[in-house]
Amino acid sequence: MHATIMYGPGEVRYERVADPSIEKPTDAIIKLSASCICGSDLWPYRGLSPQDGPAHMGHEYCGVVVAVGSEVKTVKPGQFVVGSFCLSDNTCPHCRFGFQSSCVQREFMTGAQAPYARVPLADGTLVATTEMPDADMIPHLLATSDVLGTGWYAADAAQVREGGTVVVVGDGAVGLMGVLSASQMGAERIIIMSRHADRQKLAREFGATHIVEERGDEGVARIMDMTEGVGAESVLECVGMDESMRQAIGVCRPGGTIGYVGVPHGVTFDGQKLFFWQRRMLGGPAPVRRFLPDLMDRVLKGAIQPGKVFDLVLPLAQVAEGYKAMDERRAIKTLLRVDE
Amino acid sequence: MHATIMYGPGEVRYERVADPSIEKPTDAIIKLSASCICGSDLWPYRGLSPQDGPAHMGHEYCGVVVAVGSEVKTVKPGQFVVGSFCLSDNTCPHCRFGFQSSCVQREFMTGAQAPYARVPLADGTLVATTEMPDADMIPHLLATSDVLGTGWYAADAAQVREGGTVVVVGDGAVGLMGVLSASQMGAERIIIMSRHADRQKLAREFGATHIVEERGDEGVARIMDMTEGVGAESVLECVGMDESMRQAIGVCRPGGTIGYVGVPHGVTFDGQKLFFWQRRMLGGPAPVRRFLPDLMDRVLKGAIQPGKVFDLVLPLAQVAEGYKAMDERRAIKTLLRVDE
Repeated sequence: MHATIMYGPGEVRYERVADPSIEKPTDAIIKLSASCICGSDLWPYRGLSPQDGPAHMGHEYCGVVVAVGSEVKTVKPGQFVVGSFCLSDNTCPHCRFGFQSSCVQREFMTGAQAPYARVPLADGTLVATTEMPDADMIPHLLATSDVLGTGWYAADAAQVREGGTVVVVGDGAVGLMGVLSASQMGAERIIIMSRHADRQKLAREFGATHIVEERGDEGVARIMDMTEGVGAESVLECVGMDESMRQAIGVCRPGGTIGYVGVPHGVTFDGQKLFFWQRRMLGGPAPVRRFLPDLMDRVLKGAIQPGKVFDLVLPLAQVAEGYKAMDERRAIKTLLRVDE
Repeated sequence: MHATIMYGPGEVRYERVADPSIEKPTDAIIKLSASCICGSDLWPYRGLSPQDGPAHMGHEYCGVVVAVGSEVKTVKPGQFVVGSFCLSDNTCPHCRFGFQSSCVQREFMTGAQAPYARVPLADGTLVATTEMPDADMIPHLLATSDVLGTGWYAADAAQVREGGTVVVVGDGAVGLMGVLSASQMGAERIIIMSRHADRQKLAREFGATHIVEERGDEGVARIMDMTEGVGAESVLECVGMDESMRQAIGVCRPGGTIGYVGVPHGVTFDGQKLFFWQRRMLGGPAPVRRFLPDLMDRVLKGAIQPGKVFDLVLPLAQVAEGYKAMDERRAIKTLLRVDE
């Protein structure tokens, strides 16, 4: 088959590779119903994360099981499944504690920007639907795999509550999913920091009640004004840069909580400042597996349509253009159609 | 009167000063029933916190109100009161959110290592008892003012739960109070890192179930062994040094929580490491006022005896020796008797 390989910054190719096969008895092979490009794929694309040689790209996936290893018990060929970008056994103490992204056997999914992919730890990782979903459900189900699951975790980590005030820093795909998540959790005021008209529109659709276009100190001052000088009790940091983290801290009230899901790049904290700021903080790779059954259920019931976050659809073979469009901010998030 | 003045590192004098007086209509003057020396007083004593000129020392206090300003409504002369080291109005949004230590009017108490002290924001800060407590209750009530309140906040911030596993890093007075607090909150396993026999004994008395004498990586490894490689879900960091913070992070399970109350000195965090560690963290000056009525109630009912943490009692005039004994680790915590 052909698959997506990144050779280095800006160098994404769709080229012939070996078909994936069962390597361990706990593996499954799936035929992808669709794939997509993650904001985190842009870090190496932009040369901001070091990379050791060519890498098979893609970690967001849903599709139909075509083969399973001898030890796989909970999924079988023919079933439609969604999995998380974090592969987990779902039985270890960390998984049972709801932190599957820190599973003792954790691996990170790769190679899903392809028509077929190998999913290690299939039993712990994959969640099957009872029926084959309609084609129009695919983008929404695909979104649960990472981008929605990560936004949901940000809101969960930030302890979003019914009736609460929430600030979302970052209007990328994850930030927009953070808005949707906070809305589903019953937040009353959802303020997103965004300066792009198309993203603002989508944010409103997902439940944002206020938009703040200012950034930095100005943005913080604006939100402090809107919250009577108090700040928000829940802040979702969905970028991972120093400036965005400062904004998150600046708009969070003392005793409030910051859920941060943008992988920090060039962010450091002074312990004493952190102490006196007195904000609760929880970050990390999202334990999507914890939320997956619930999120898939919300999608299948039609309660949420997270797939709206895909504003560019390309055939898989044009994956390089998908990266380019996201890098140049022409697209929020690219869905890759698997046509064969 | 005489009071305690720190002139610089190692230079504590008990000398004549002006009597405190009502300066603002929201002030109260109290006659102290006892005072004490805080671990945080040792930072400037050791030259580890910069100091601007001579400072009136002491921020832990309980005693009898002798005068109040014209606007004070909730306490009156003759009443026995306890207050927090953080002065707060207890009405602002941060106070109502339970974070009185971030009150919009916050001040830090000073001048309480003296027979009389001025307490600003008396209405918001002071909690009165219904009756005059017996003399033997004074050390326990005094402890609620800061050291117990801070240990309690560490346990609260670390989300200690009934039946949970807790690690306390630091066997100073606050760490010992953290043990007592975790025990009161129903933790099943309370592991304290301690290498001093006298402190270990007190820790056991306060509810510690396990003692770990090893430090650093060795200490972390020991606790990981004791917790089947999982770590604790709640960790109380009660020191504030780089090594102790590393230990706290090292023994906390992913998704677990670190409550840190030792003011960090020389501690910095790399954002990306913090992200992948995936520990929830909350620190800050303790909002003791939130807990004070409950803690005073527990003391007065005889449920807890936090005053046992005072292992050296000196007359106030010998305050300099009290500092020295704590600095040299001959005492865990010094109670200063007010005799006049």
